[in-house]
Amino acid sequence: MKRAAVVGVMGAGDGARAEDVKTAFQLGKAVAENGWVLLSGGRNAGVMDAVNKGAKSAGGLTVGIVPEANKNSLSDAVDVGIVSGMGSARNYINVLSSDVVIACGHGGAGTASEIALALKSKKPVVLLNNRDESVAFFRSVGGDLIHCAGSVADAIALVRTLLAKV
Amino acid sequence: MKRAAVVGVMGAGDGARAEDVKTAFQLGKAVAENGWVLLSGGRNAGVMDAVNKGAKSAGGLTVGIVPEANKNSLSDAVDVGIVSGMGSARNYINVLSSDVVIACGHGGAGTASEIALALKSKKPVVLLNNRDESVAFFRSVGGDLIHCAGSVADAIALVRTLLAKV
Amino acid sequence: MKRAAVVGVMGAGDGARAEDVKTAFQLGKAVAENGWVLLSGGRNAGVMDAVNKGAKSAGGLTVGIVPEANKNSLSDAVDVGIVSGMGSARNYINVLSSDVVIACGHGGAGTASEIALALKSKKPVVLLNNRDESVAFFRSVGGDLIHCAGSVADAIALVRTLLAKV
Amino acid sequence: MKRAAVVGVMGAGDGARAEDVKTAFQLGKAVAENGWVLLSGGRNAGVMDAVNKGAKSAGGLTVGIVPEANKNSLSDAVDVGIVSGMGSARNYINVLSSDVVIACGHGGAGTASEIALALKSKKPVVLLNNRDESVAFFRSVGGDLIHCAGSVADAIALVRTLLAKV
Repeated sequence: MKRAAVVGVMGAGDGARAEDVKTAFQLGKAVAENGWVLLSGGRNAGVMDAVNKGAKSAGGLTVGIVPEANKNSLSDAVDVGIVSGMGSARNYINVLSSDVVIACGHGGAGTASEIALALKSKKPVVLLNNRDESVAFFRSVGGDLIHCAGSVADAIALVRTLLAKV
Repeated sequence: MKRAAVVGVMGAGDGARAEDVKTAFQLGKAVAENGWVLLSGGRNAGVMDAVNKGAKSAGGLTVGIVPEANKNSLSDAVDVGIVSGMGSARNYINVLSSDVVIACGHGGAGTASEIALALKSKKPVVLLNNRDESVAFFRSVGGDLIHCAGSVADAIALVRTLLAKV
Repeated sequence: MKRAAVVGVMGAGDGARAEDVKTAFQLGKAVAENGWVLLSGGRNAGVMDAVNKGAKSAGGLTVGIVPEANKNSLSDAVDVGIVSGMGSARNYINVLSSDVVIACGHGGAGTASEIALALKSKKPVVLLNNRDESVAFFRSVGGDLIHCAGSVADAIALVRTLLAKV
Repeated sequence: MKRAAVVGVMGAGDGARAEDVKTAFQLGKAVAENGWVLLSGGRNAGVMDAVNKGAKSAGGLTVGIVPEANKNSLSDAVDVGIVSGMGSARNYINVLSSDVVIACGHGGAGTASEIALALKSKKPVVLLNNRDESVAFFRSVGGDLIHCAGSVADAIALVRTLLAKV
């Protein structure tokens, strides 16, 4: 058996910008079209919800790991809900379980922690439409592990290249 | 969308008895035949490995949450590998993510912790072919949450009834 | 520097029996009198609260690791509160951080998970006034790691012997 | 009883700059002189080791939470070692357990994750001698929760003010 690659998409929940939510849907769709499993923080809000909906629109498999101790906040578009019961400590599991991590849009503190934890764990990270301060900072911390994309197509091309190396 | 139920099967890894491994394969097969997602500790040993192989033999979806910080120990029969990086603390996630928990065979300390954590989290637990001391103890701790089965068919019937209530 | 030994005392919170709470106070006192650091689940209820009060009555140092994401439920008798924010996954940290674990009285499912996680992590466990089913079960799982005591004095003597080996 | 405040100091381990290690010692000393408990990542390297040594030089109480499943990597200057066994998920516990978080010097990805997790948990954060990119980024994410200091004295003054509010 050859297990499908897992692409983790991280991004804002309630505070997400409309344009990032729109991008997330297209990103999730593209992840599914490439046959990759989509992994996310799983909540029914913002980028998390949209990326799962996009993946389901293309028939993909979606996995969501929620911070709560139950499935109440899980996006309807998540097939497999993992219930961590450990708040933001679940962010560590999100990135360890992903072969490549994409940070989609202007994330908040949670997304920042996921990028940092991914770098700490030596995972490649694609920053898609991140704010300038984020790119500058994470480049200073993560060096070659950080890759930048300005469109879903660019992000997917980067993931394809990165997955070929892991 | 109606999300599929998740049945967690816990049991011994390296120290598993041959008869429990055999039962685990049949149990995994039956879980898949019922359309339930199989969740387990995910390692490529003992009951964990066998239950996933059984589920895949019937075309089921299998999820495994490993204690390690990488996928090296993941059973080949796991479709979705969740990498916790948190040792036995992952046992808590195993039970929180399961709608019903089945303890299959003579488990060791890890399985005992999963039964106890399930009871603490008010999850129903089916003890399938557990040792007498285990049944007596967990009945004294868990009361009505504990159900006993002496065959795969009995365990599956119990799960069906329990899932109708959650 | 020679760091002080850490003795973890686990037991029921809200559901604790009056006699177990009384024993817990004496146990905490004795732990402190021996110069050991007391570690517990830290909550302001039952055995957890009493064992910390006992230790403080003898001027000991007390550490409590709570499941919640804040210190609201922390016993007043805990000097150092560790806030895990991860529910019962904190039970794993409780036992890993202890050099010896004592289960005091008739514990519930939480205490059972701590005994099991301690055994999984190869920590010695003293069962003080545990119910018969608990002793029989954990002996069947933990073998030589399990030690039984019928009084605080016996438990302390066992801890002294066990600490000499770790 | 009035429990002592807990000040968490985060910073680089093996990769720490010499000047940050020197500052960390002075910072730990000042934390202890103020009667605060020092909490850190606990490892015997870099900023983590130095801050604990500084606190002990002034007779303070030091707590360290290590990522490993044993105490082998614990700094000799840590009084109370908490063994998380959960890798970088312990960073979440570090910040939840601290009343105020100080990031000391040019930290790496681990420190970045701690700052981000602190902001996610609404903890005030003092950036002491952080790189410019770090200040700019965390200001964009954390807003009013972020405070900057250019000396140990400034950091301590900020902590004193912040502790008066929590």
